[in-house]
Amino acid sequence: MFCDNFFKPFKFVLVVLNAFFCFSMPNAWAQEPIQRQADVIIVGGGLAGLSAARTLVSEGLSVIVLEASNRIGGRTWTKNIPGGGWIDMGGQWVGPGMEHILPLAESLDVKTFPSYHKGDNILIYGGKQQKYSSDPAVGTFPISQEELKDYQSALKKIDAYALEVPVDAPWRAPRAKEWDSQTLATWIRDNVPSPGAKFILRVFALGYFAAEPSDISFLHFLFYIHAGGGFHKLHTSGVALRFAGGAQQISEKMANQLGDRVLLNMPVREIDQTGDLVVVRTEHDRFEAKQVIVAMAPPLAVRISYKPNLPANRDQFSQRTPMGSSIKVHAVYETAFWREKGLSGQVISEDDDVSLAVDNSPPDGKPGILAGFLEGQEAREWSDRPEAELKKKVLEAFVKFYGAEAATPVAFYKADWDAEPWARGCFTCVLPPGTWTGFPGVVREPVGRIHWAGTETATEWYAYMDGAVASGKRAAANILLILKKDDNVKKTK
Amino acid sequence: MFCDNFFKPFKFVLVVLNAFFCFSMPNAWAQEPIQRQADVIIVGGGLAGLSAARTLVSEGLSVIVLEASNRIGGRTWTKNIPGGGWIDMGGQWVGPGMEHILPLAESLDVKTFPSYHKGDNILIYGGKQQKYSSDPAVGTFPISQEELKDYQSALKKIDAYALEVPVDAPWRAPRAKEWDSQTLATWIRDNVPSPGAKFILRVFALGYFAAEPSDISFLHFLFYIHAGGGFHKLHTSGVALRFAGGAQQISEKMANQLGDRVLLNMPVREIDQTGDLVVVRTEHDRFEAKQVIVAMAPPLAVRISYKPNLPANRDQFSQRTPMGSSIKVHAVYETAFWREKGLSGQVISEDDDVSLAVDNSPPDGKPGILAGFLEGQEAREWSDRPEAELKKKVLEAFVKFYGAEAATPVAFYKADWDAEPWARGCFTCVLPPGTWTGFPGVVREPVGRIHWAGTETATEWYAYMDGAVASGKRAAANILLILKKDDNVKKTK
Repeated sequence: MFCDNFFKPFKFVLVVLNAFFCFSMPNAWAQEPIQRQADVIIVGGGLAGLSAARTLVSEGLSVIVLEASNRIGGRTWTKNIPGGGWIDMGGQWVGPGMEHILPLAESLDVKTFPSYHKGDNILIYGGKQQKYSSDPAVGTFPISQEELKDYQSALKKIDAYALEVPVDAPWRAPRAKEWDSQTLATWIRDNVPSPGAKFILRVFALGYFAAEPSDISFLHFLFYIHAGGGFHKLHTSGVALRFAGGAQQISEKMANQLGDRVLLNMPVREIDQTGDLVVVRTEHDRFEAKQVIVAMAPPLAVRISYKPNLPANRDQFSQRTPMGSSIKVHAVYETAFWREKGLSGQVISEDDDVSLAVDNSPPDGKPGILAGFLEGQEAREWSDRPEAELKKKVLEAFVKFYGAEAATPVAFYKADWDAEPWARGCFTCVLPPGTWTGFPGVVREPVGRIHWAGTETATEWYAYMDGAVASGKRAAANILLILKKDDNVKKTK
Repeated sequence: MFCDNFFKPFKFVLVVLNAFFCFSMPNAWAQEPIQRQADVIIVGGGLAGLSAARTLVSEGLSVIVLEASNRIGGRTWTKNIPGGGWIDMGGQWVGPGMEHILPLAESLDVKTFPSYHKGDNILIYGGKQQKYSSDPAVGTFPISQEELKDYQSALKKIDAYALEVPVDAPWRAPRAKEWDSQTLATWIRDNVPSPGAKFILRVFALGYFAAEPSDISFLHFLFYIHAGGGFHKLHTSGVALRFAGGAQQISEKMANQLGDRVLLNMPVREIDQTGDLVVVRTEHDRFEAKQVIVAMAPPLAVRISYKPNLPANRDQFSQRTPMGSSIKVHAVYETAFWREKGLSGQVISEDDDVSLAVDNSPPDGKPGILAGFLEGQEAREWSDRPEAELKKKVLEAFVKFYGAEAATPVAFYKADWDAEPWARGCFTCVLPPGTWTGFPGVVREPVGRIHWAGTETATEWYAYMDGAVASGKRAAANILLILKKDDNVKKTK
């Protein structure tokens, strides 16, 4: 501190000289470089990173959270809209059985409300647009009896197989090698004869993975199902509830409690653990800690420079963990007019780039909000394209789904997750064949004093907010054990 | 220049103050930051980058080549050994029909010599160690007639399918979607009944892709075969010749000719094309150019920061291009003792982590050198492990293959490519299902003023040195066209 102040006059002289002599000064002079220390530095200010920070702070440790972007929340992102409403541009669903995110939300006084599941869903398939009850006790997909039987038999097989995949070690499944040698597309081709059932399973891949069946290792698919508690639970609990006021609030409230421990606009460039303390560098700033948590998806985490270099298998694993491809759009209407027509808002379409749509209105249905999803190949086709074109395409589909009223929303929003620099895809990593079995154990294995968090390291509700929170708590707990052990060693010495 | 000199006394004062007041100065002051301009900056000093540089210089353009590591040559790396010999730790084989690397070598006065293919090969399979002639006209794999027939029928099918895959657009193959929805493992499972033929095809995946059949999209596999001119050509031309003195010489000689245009130890951190010139930054230095060639494999190229951000599909594509997994070892002996026993040195083993071995001696066979390959799963198991352990394991295998003399080499060398920070795997990218068809056209599509090179962008001899050279020349030719057009526009104005 003394040095900094003492030095200021000299710096002033330099800045003047600089302006005068056009000498390009290192950028660091423009702004005081930050230099801070903490017990633990957390890279990534999403649900995982903030949950880790919260756990560590509650145990009396000092932490710094470095978030690359200009907001916290990661793949949860709530947009306030004119008139006081809000929209979840990213992750939004929770439900019973999620043991980490729900208690956390409650402790932060964030309320849940049930997703809208009343009236009829719509299925557009085989050239027909058909309604069916959104109540699973009443109706199901309007495909032929034979196709339905085929679909249900596939689900039954998948659920049974999924139970054989240990969620903490998918590579240890008795048939791991067989299942990890093929894609979900191959399994569907071989086991699901009817086109209708095939189609519904593709929609499942799009809706849950934001990926095509050809992208997904069948072992990874089974792991995901098991981590979510099976097909039925995914379909019910997985989408049962939403947060009143939006999902990003959880992160915002945690960040508020953490105060100036959380720094935004801090893309980490290097993590150096060659010295006594781990040094974490951004372009201009420098932080030191005893331990580090990297709470980022592996394909982004691997873009940081590490000293020493990451172990070969950690790097190679991270080359095999692509993010799903996802665009989420919203159209806002004065009222949820489709409800009055007896529609739930849920649409699955074979013919439209918006292959999935749901009612995403606030609890009172005012305004009426429809969310549309472009996933997998459709997201890739629409990424980086002008919003006006996409809006036109989406609204054409919405008119077909919901009627002419859909043509004139009061507002339209797009979240192109593949284009987001600090997400580079959504919802999470979609492991191709050969990854789980090729790199057993790598996913959560710490690298020296670096610990990995993020929903990609979760064993329950992988890809969900719940998995993210659990992963942050797990990484924090590991560090607590290590630091306590270190303390004991010091005391004994 | 004037500014730099004028400023020096002030800097001296600062350095003294710094030492005195313990103020941590930005690192940039420690060493004069380099600031240079050129028509084209090339990121990556392997065969692709250097070939591009050479082409551009020959057309009168100024270039700067920035190489991250402390040597040029990329995945070619020749080690000089005591006694005047040399070893190719990386890429080494060329052959007839390679129209880019061979003329380049000739122009640089680097001679080729035939790989050693005399005497008997060894196959260890099904619990038996059997010899067979290394002359394909005389002998072939000692598996049963039925298995052989099965193997040959698979090759025939694969060769025919490969011809249907356009090498410049694999996603346009009539059956692209079908083939890109499955792994090579699935295709083998479905089409190759006998275990012997299955085994030989796995060896093919290991030997040519450094990957497991489960890692490889069947479409990518077919593309590779077509790009190499079919099975027969890959098996003959693909491994026919080596460079006397080693493959890295080609890069070294090109770099010598390019002189101070080539800078080592320059990991590029950022490429910024938001201004009139493209700015390329390393940690300390800054370069400007009209156009940039990134001659790196996609999984490494994507770790650079780009301004503006890379297009969504370029980023997502690069998340789906993992490098193969490869360790290459060498044991050096006074003489090629196996030759005296009538052995070619070539071994394929089902039972050993070194699943492939070859005679890798210099033309006169003195010293005798054996190369062993650990690929795919074996490489992953041995990466980052102590060399002494690996040496023991390899030499045990070599004793089994070649006799007791193999136990005591005069030297042993390991190249763990997955651990190499600027390679992170070898030989090249192994595309999983869904990548070629999911991201059509992305592989070579320039991003603004950034052009992509590297053998990963080749359409002939993908993964080979020849493909690398061709890719560099192609990227350079594109830039020449653009700059000529720009010049014409300026002239007309």
